[in-house]
Parts: sequence; structure tokens; C-alpha cells
Amino acid sequence: MPFVREKANPLITPEQVRPWLEGFRVMGTFNAGAARFGEEILLLLRVSERPPEAAEGFVNVPEMTQREGKWTVGIRTLSLGDPRYDFSDPRKVLDRETGSYVFLTSISHLRLARSRDGVHFTVEDRPLIRPEGELEAFGAEDARITRIGDTYYINYTAVSRHGITTALAETEDFARVRRRGVIFVTENRDVCIFPERIGGKYHALVRPVPRQIGEAKIWTAASEDLLHWGEYAPLPLPRFDWDGMRNGGGAVPLKTDRGWLILYHGADRESNRYSMGAALLAAEDPRKVLAVSREPVLYASAPYETEGFYPNVVFSCGALLEGDTVWMYYGGADRVMGLARANLTALLDGLERT
Amino acid sequence: MPFVREKANPLITPEQVRPWLEGFRVMGTFNAGAARFGEEILLLLRVSERPPEAAEGFVNVPEMTQREGKWTVGIRTLSLGDPRYDFSDPRKVLDRETGSYVFLTSISHLRLARSRDGVHFTVEDRPLIRPEGELEAFGAEDARITRIGDTYYINYTAVSRHGITTALAETEDFARVRRRGVIFVTENRDVCIFPERIGGKYHALVRPVPRQIGEAKIWTAASEDLLHWGEYAPLPLPRFDWDGMRNGGGAVPLKTDRGWLILYHGADRESNRYSMGAALLAAEDPRKVLAVSREPVLYASAPYETEGFYPNVVFSCGALLEGDTVWMYYGGADRVMGLARANLTALLDGLERT
Repeated sequence: MPFVREKANPLITPEQVRPWLEGFRVMGTFNAGAARFGEEILLLLRVSERPPEAAEGFVNVPEMTQREGKWTVGIRTLSLGDPRYDFSDPRKVLDRETGSYVFLTSISHLRLARSRDGVHFTVEDRPLIRPEGELEAFGAEDARITRIGDTYYINYTAVSRHGITTALAETEDFARVRRRGVIFVTENRDVCIFPERIGGKYHALVRPVPRQIGEAKIWTAASEDLLHWGEYAPLPLPRFDWDGMRNGGGAVPLKTDRGWLILYHGADRESNRYSMGAALLAAEDPRKVLAVSREPVLYASAPYETEGFYPNVVFSCGALLEGDTVWMYYGGADRVMGLARANLTALLDGLERT
Repeated sequence: MPFVREKANPLITPEQVRPWLEGFRVMGTFNAGAARFGEEILLLLRVSERPPEAAEGFVNVPEMTQREGKWTVGIRTLSLGDPRYDFSDPRKVLDRETGSYVFLTSISHLRLARSRDGVHFTVEDRPLIRPEGELEAFGAEDARITRIGDTYYINYTAVSRHGITTALAETEDFARVRRRGVIFVTENRDVCIFPERIGGKYHALVRPVPRQIGEAKIWTAASEDLLHWGEYAPLPLPRFDWDGMRNGGGAVPLKTDRGWLILYHGADRESNRYSMGAALLAAEDPRKVLAVSREPVLYASAPYETEGFYPNVVFSCGALLEGDTVWMYYGGADRVMGLARANLTALLDGLERT
């Protein structure tokens, strides 16, 4: 594999991080967006938290409610004997009659971690982006950061009983954040916005998940203003065994001399193992695939990737090009953050032309 | 019910219509968009066609292929004994391994019907919009027509193995049509574009269908140019038994003195019966619901609605306001076209404030 793991992995674990919510436990610090910001490397972590353990026969779930115009996360205690609910999946509570999600058992927010060397991170104590509003009632997840000019655009997954949408926020200083609303409607996540206009327009990788026909895979979209999107087309990315079940955008695309390097995730049909792949898209038209990795460029094999909240997952939301080295940050097993590096030239040379 | 059926119903049936495709049979003439065009009332019909019957033990399916840059619909003959395919649903052929759609057994295009009185229609022999390209390989369905200035915008459902998307086309004369591409990505259909800017922007009802969380229901979206859309939010429409399973946009919204009248479809959880409901949205902000019909304004009960290709369906894609009368055109049982009329004032008076 072209990517080599950092020896200090895992770089960030739940044990190092203080919960934001009173009495909650941090279950995961993972799937971070990444950005270079002056002398620092920033990770915008997904921090998932769970309410304290309930008494036997009960389960505590986070519940977001609006009081006097303010959204707060509280705890709701459900009886495991309540006939309205299906508790069989420890991650969620379903309505028995309709099958729809009523609660998740954890809730995520987005929190900054700062580093000078890209390896040793200090995690802040408070969220940069906390879930807020009816469309984020189940949490804010999986940020990607795209720098355009002096603005950092942060897209993230907004989850609620209404569905899984992608929301946009922006910041210049990683202190004040402006929310810009939902840019892709349910079910759509794993959105990666390209860091400059191409052919006069902004472009993005999106990952719609249809119910009736079609499969979960990467499409492209275009925009004039980053807020309104159209011109949707499936990305003609060859599929392999390792991403035979689904794929989706990973890190924000990196500009190289040969075109756009994308690092994307895929899961296989046999074991639902999440790996990372790489592809090269045409510099002047990111809807064209020039080359692709036949095998994963990183797959789950380290213990912190094969064991965790959701085992056998490596999942990148952010990578940086530092000189001729690709630094790929990634979540391991929906629990911790890892880093793996690859030489850019070797990585591109290893791709097969399509 | 406020709507009264036209005595001449059904207005258009498959028996009256010549197939477009050589040797195919017309199965349905239904779910038409509607527009007033000078002295005429136009319906843009969904015409579904099926290949000729195959020999025993085989089934013929339409197959769209590209030859020398041109997309044509041919016939593929499949053996019912072919272990790769699941033929249990007569409307589609599934891949046994992945469960995904490989073929539909019919293919739809959009065809004009013209009338002076809105009741007696002459159906053209050729499509106005035929399915074309990789994203329409399974057909073009369920048009809505929105007039803005002198341009008629036609959105329709583009179906393929990639999923169910919404595409936009435009015309001034219903003779030459310009295609504008996919405006909503899979899975999204039942799109209704409002006929003027509201608060400086275009607005639409959209109907995303999520897989994992959430249900099929109406959201709103906004746009500056009709091609790129964002600002998605769920429409806070109260739900009732009659639309408890799903709802979606129906006719293009009608402007009234009291606000925007929308006629939308819903299906119930018990019997999957499709009915039409009505709601009033705020004139200055169509994301606000002012009033709604607690009971359907039309439900399937006539024989041409309860029996057909897909029984117990009334499904409108277009309505006109002629004086103080709402003319609602609708598909019956995915087979024929019907018309029902209601007095506007009585219809609005019958809605309940939310």
C-alpha cells in the first residue's frame, strides 16, 4: 500500500477528550476535516458523546429540544420494555410501527484540534460547530474543510428524523462561524467541495443514497455560489471488489500537476469493510476520471482500525499536500484519528489509467 | 369532496394513442403536466409503452443503447429461466445478486395533447420529450409545466439504473425544447416550480426519498436561476391517515388572493391508495403552511381510478385556474387521464387553518 501509518497512531482518542455535554461520555473522536491555517494544522473532529448509563432495564438517549428559541441537548430515559420502540441496534432506537429512527443513542458535534507538527494535537474543550435546529437534532457529523481565498468553507452532515442532509458553514478564523443552511437534501453526505472554480464554476463530489433504484456512489455537482447546486452527473469511477457495495467522497480534492487527486472511501459487499481508494480527475473538468487505484490505498488492519465503535473502518475526511507528501488524516473504527502518509509521485504512478 | 369529476372521463386512454416505438404497445397515457397556451389547453402526457409479447418462457424488455452518438430504444429478450434475474414483479427485472434494477418492462416518454375546451384532446403521434442519455435510459416521466414570462419550464422525472432524478427543459412554443440537465439528484421527483419569483428567488416543492432515516415527503428549495438549487427545508405540512405513508408535490402551485394553492398527492399506510390533498401556503413565503385539507380533495373511486396498471391511484401533475374554477387534471390508476373541477372559494373555505 502506498500509504504508511504514522508511528504515533492513533493521534487522538476519546480518552483524551473532555465531553462537551454535562455527564456525557465521549465515545468517538474521528472523521475529522483538515486544514492548514498559518503555522498550524487544524483538525475539525467529529466528537460523539453518549449519555450516562441508565439503570438496568432502561436506556438513556440524547434529546435535543428547543426552549425559548434556544436548542439544548438533554437526556431522555426510555424503558427497554416500552412496546413502541425497537432497541435491537445499540446505535439507534426505532419506532416499531413505522421503522423510522426516533432517537440515536449518541450525538456528535464538531470540535477543533490544533497542532504545529501535524502529529501532536491539542483538542479544544468546546465545539466549534454544535448541532442546532430541527435538521441537526441527531447531530453534526463528518466535516470537510475547503479553503477558497481567505475563507474556509466547512460542509458537514446534518442528521435528524427528517433525514441526512449536508449543511454549509464558513469561517475566516476558526473562531466565528457563519451557518449557511442545507446545500444538499436528504439523503446526501460525504460532500467534497473543490478548492477553486474550474471552468468558471464551483464543483463538488456528492454522495446521494437512493431508496428505490441505484446505489450509494459518488456524483458530481456544480454551483455558481456554493449555496445552490445543480448539473448533477454520476462520476464514471470504475468499481472494484473493495468498493463494490458503496463509495463516497473522502478528503477534499488535492490539486496536483497531473490533475485533481481524490481520496475516497469504499465498502465491500462481503464484509462491509471501509477502505480508502485514490483517483485522478482531469484538471480542467473534474467530471472526467483519468486514473484510479485498483486496490485500496489504505485498508483497516491496525488494531485501532479493526476494533472500535464500528470495526474495520478507515475513513478520511481531510488530507493535506505538504511538499511532495500526501498527509491523509482518517478515522479508525469510528473511534479514533489516525494519519498515514504517501509520496505523491509514487501514489499517482500507482494509479491505473481508465 | 370539493372536486367533481368531468362526465367525459376518462379524457384520454391508451387505446386512443399510437405507439411511438415500432411494434410497442401503449400501456398508459397518464400523469400529465398542464398549461394554457394561447387558445389551447395543453397536456404533456406520460406515455408508457411496452415491447410486443415474447414467446413462452421469455420476456421482452425495452433497452436504450447509444449508437454513433444517438440513443435508440430497442428490444431485449430475456429468458425467464436466466438465473441472473428476478422477474417476480411484472414492472421490473432485478439483479438477483445485488437487488438492483436491470430493466423496466415499459418505458415512458412525454407527449403533447391539445384541446380547445380542456375536455376533448387530440394526442400527437410523436414525443415532445423522448428519453435520451444515460440518465433517462429507463424513461422520462411525470412532467410539470411552469410558465414564467413567455417561457414554459418543464421538469420531469429521469429514470435510469443510476437512480431517479429530476431534469429541466424549456420551451416557448411547445415545438422546440431545450434540455437543461439534472436539477435534483437521486432520489428526487414530484418537483413543482412556483410560477414567479417570491422574495427575489425561485422556489420549488421537491420530494426526496431517503434510504436510512426519514420518510418520503415534501421539502422546499430555492434558486436564483432555476438550474442550481439549495436552501432545502421540510415543508411543515400536517400529515393525516390519507397521506401517512408518503406525500409529494402534485400540480404546479396556483396563485390565489389568499396565497399559493397546492394540490399534492399522498398515500396511506394501510392500502397504499393515492389521493389528492390541498394546502394553502403564504403568498410571500411558500415555506409557510397556512391551511390544509384534513381529508383528501379527491380519492380513487371511479372504475378508471380503481382499476388499471396500478390500481387505486389519482395523481395530478397539473391544474389550471380558469376564472373561479380549479381544473385539476390527473392520472387514474397509472393508465388514463381524468379531469375534476372545484370552485376555488369553496375549496379554500374547506381548508383548516394550521
